[in-house]
Parts: sequence; structure tokens; C-alpha cells
Amino acid sequence: MNPPATDRLERQMRFLFEADKLKEVLRRTRLPQSQRAENSAEHSWHIVLMTVILAEHTVPAGVDVMHVMKMLLIHDIVEIDAGDTFGYDTTGHADKRDREVRAADRIFGLLPADQTTEIRALWEEFEAGETAEAKYALAMDRFQAVMVNYLSNGGSWREHHVTADRVIARNQVIEHSSPTLWAYARNLIEDAVAKGHLSPKA
Amino acid sequence: MNPPATDRLERQMRFLFEADKLKEVLRRTRLPQSQRAENSAEHSWHIVLMTVILAEHTVPAGVDVMHVMKMLLIHDIVEIDAGDTFGYDTTGHADKRDREVRAADRIFGLLPADQTTEIRALWEEFEAGETAEAKYALAMDRFQAVMVNYLSNGGSWREHHVTADRVIARNQVIEHSSPTLWAYARNLIEDAVAKGHLSPKA
Repeated sequence: MNPPATDRLERQMRFLFEADKLKEVLRRTRLPQSQRAENSAEHSWHIVLMTVILAEHTVPAGVDVMHVMKMLLIHDIVEIDAGDTFGYDTTGHADKRDREVRAADRIFGLLPADQTTEIRALWEEFEAGETAEAKYALAMDRFQAVMVNYLSNGGSWREHHVTADRVIARNQVIEHSSPTLWAYARNLIEDAVAKGHLSPKA
Repeated sequence: MNPPATDRLERQMRFLFEADKLKEVLRRTRLPQSQRAENSAEHSWHIVLMTVILAEHTVPAGVDVMHVMKMLLIHDIVEIDAGDTFGYDTTGHADKRDREVRAADRIFGLLPADQTTEIRALWEEFEAGETAEAKYALAMDRFQAVMVNYLSNGGSWREHHVTADRVIARNQVIEHSSPTLWAYARNLIEDAVAKGHLSPKA
């Protein structure tokens, strides 16, 4: 017989069991090979990896990389209750904040109090988008979607009739964290237009 | 016209494009809700999240959490070429190292030289399993598979006729990093046996 877990560990495990469900939350982006919808858990993995590899390109230099990694690990967990809101869906955005705050209360609230506070603060920092870390995190989140849509020959852009001007308008926030990465993203967008995978205008 | 990317950034992006394929590498574990096979990218996300939440339970205390996060982010990327080897498959393990070394050479070699060296060293550290960080990383990797199999009512254990004694033998390495988490994992295994989701012996 093993010793019973402490209440603290039980709470941590209940959160980690719950987090598993993020693998079932589908995004609009499609994977280049199979064309299946990407889920929010694998998307989160990809952007945390990008955070590590691309950190040198942020302006100002010297963001707290671990802080960004943690922020991006947890930034989409609210979607387990609130669902993924498509970036180009203006209707869905109207009540997004309300839905996500209720989700944050419930899901982050599964953790021991000190960790609830820590994770909730990371999520609110991401949502507020004001610190250099939150700006880099948002840049990774947006840049990854551009990448995956580019790699899947237009993917969700084509499927949802999104035009290049809207792609540029949505993603130019990347520049606030990294002009270098925004130039790269723009080259991908322009190349997608040149290849006929993205319409220039409505 | 945007400035062309530096060769350094091109190499980083080529690695990140390639890494995207980890989402298509399937594991034997099945997700509790949909029962679809879990992929190695979402698995990697889950264990990096676990690393953050459970770090206080490691022995000795005070592992370098960010180092473990980075190690786990990249530890499965070799599977893009080498495939996932099922933990209970003794045949597949015979040439696993050779296949994975070739994959590491190719995929980590896409990066700029300094990053190739850094990421390769993280992977080799994980594979060697000697540092406190590598032991914690391995514990997270194994513990997560126990968790997901438990949550899916036996999942790949049942499907592949794996018995509790083999599950214990494979996962007791968790104890080297955390007796507390190994006790928790054992409780999950015993509960799976009690519920009839895992056979006690062959």
C-alpha cells in the first residue's frame, strides 16, 4: 500500500488531468501533411519551441524566456471550456473575454492556491499584452499560425476566404516584439499571394 | 519589399518548419475522450506543463526547471525520422539508438551551428539519463504515459496486453526523481488493476 497523496498533489494532478483535454480543442489551421485540423495542445508545444529558438530576435533584447515559455504553455488552456475563437471571426470575439474568464476561474482554480495565483497571473499578463514577455508570446502565437497556414498552401485562409490585407492587419502586432520576425512573416504572406494560395484583397 | 532573412534566421525557420511534423507522429497511448492516438507534439506539451506544476516533488529539490522544459520540448523530435518506439516493444528498441542518432544529426543539424550544439547536448543529456534534470525529464515522460493510460481506462495497456508487473518495471524509474510521484503513479496502476482495466500478471 502506497501512502495517500497530499491534498496539494491531488489538486495538481486534477489540473493536469483536466489540461489533457486541450488536445481535443481544434483550431482552424490545418496541418501541412494530413490536412487535419491542428489542436491547441500541439500548437502550444510548437510556439514554446519557437520561443526558445527565436528569442534572440526580440526587441528589446533580453526577454525572460522561461516566463514566456510558461505563459505560452498555459495561454490556451481556457479553451477547454471556452473553445477556440477563430482569429478572423469578429462575432466570436464579442463574448470571448467573458467565456475565457469563467474558464480561467474554473480550470486554474483546480490548482493549489499559490499555483492558481501564479498561473492566473501569467494568463492575465498574456491577455493584457503589455509586457515585453507578453508581446513576444503574442508574436509567437500569431507567427506560428502564419507559418502553418503558409506550409499548408493557404490552409484556413483559403477555407475561410481570408484575404492578405486582413492577414497583415491581424499579424502586424508581431512587429511590436520583433521587426525581424515580422519581415519574415510578411515574406511568407507575400509568397503565399504570389503562389495563389492567398487572395490579395476582398 | 521586405529585407531578406539572414542565413541564420532561415536555418532556424527551416528547423521550426520541420519540427511541425512531430504532430503527425503517433504514439500508442489513446486520448480519454476521443480514443484517438496521441501524437508526440501534444504529449510533449503535456509533459512540459507537468514539469512546471510538479517541480517541487523532485529529489533532490531544486532542479533547473527551465533546463528540463527545454529538454522535454525537443526530446521527441528525432521521432520525425525514427518513429515512436512503443515502450513495451523490445524488438523496436534494438536499433532505436541508431535510428535516433541519424535523425538527430539531420534535424538538429538544420539549425545554426551554436543551436545545433545546444539542442543536441540537451537531447544527449536526456538520453544518458544521469543528471537530476534528465531524471526528472524521464520521470515526466513516463508518468504522463501512465496518466493517459489510466484516464483512458487502460488504453494502450489493454490494447497491447501489457500487464501491471511490466507497467511497474518500466515506470519505477520515476522514483529516481521523485518517490512522491512514483507513489502516485503506483496508486493509479493499482486502481487500474482494481477496476479491471489492467491485468495484474501475464
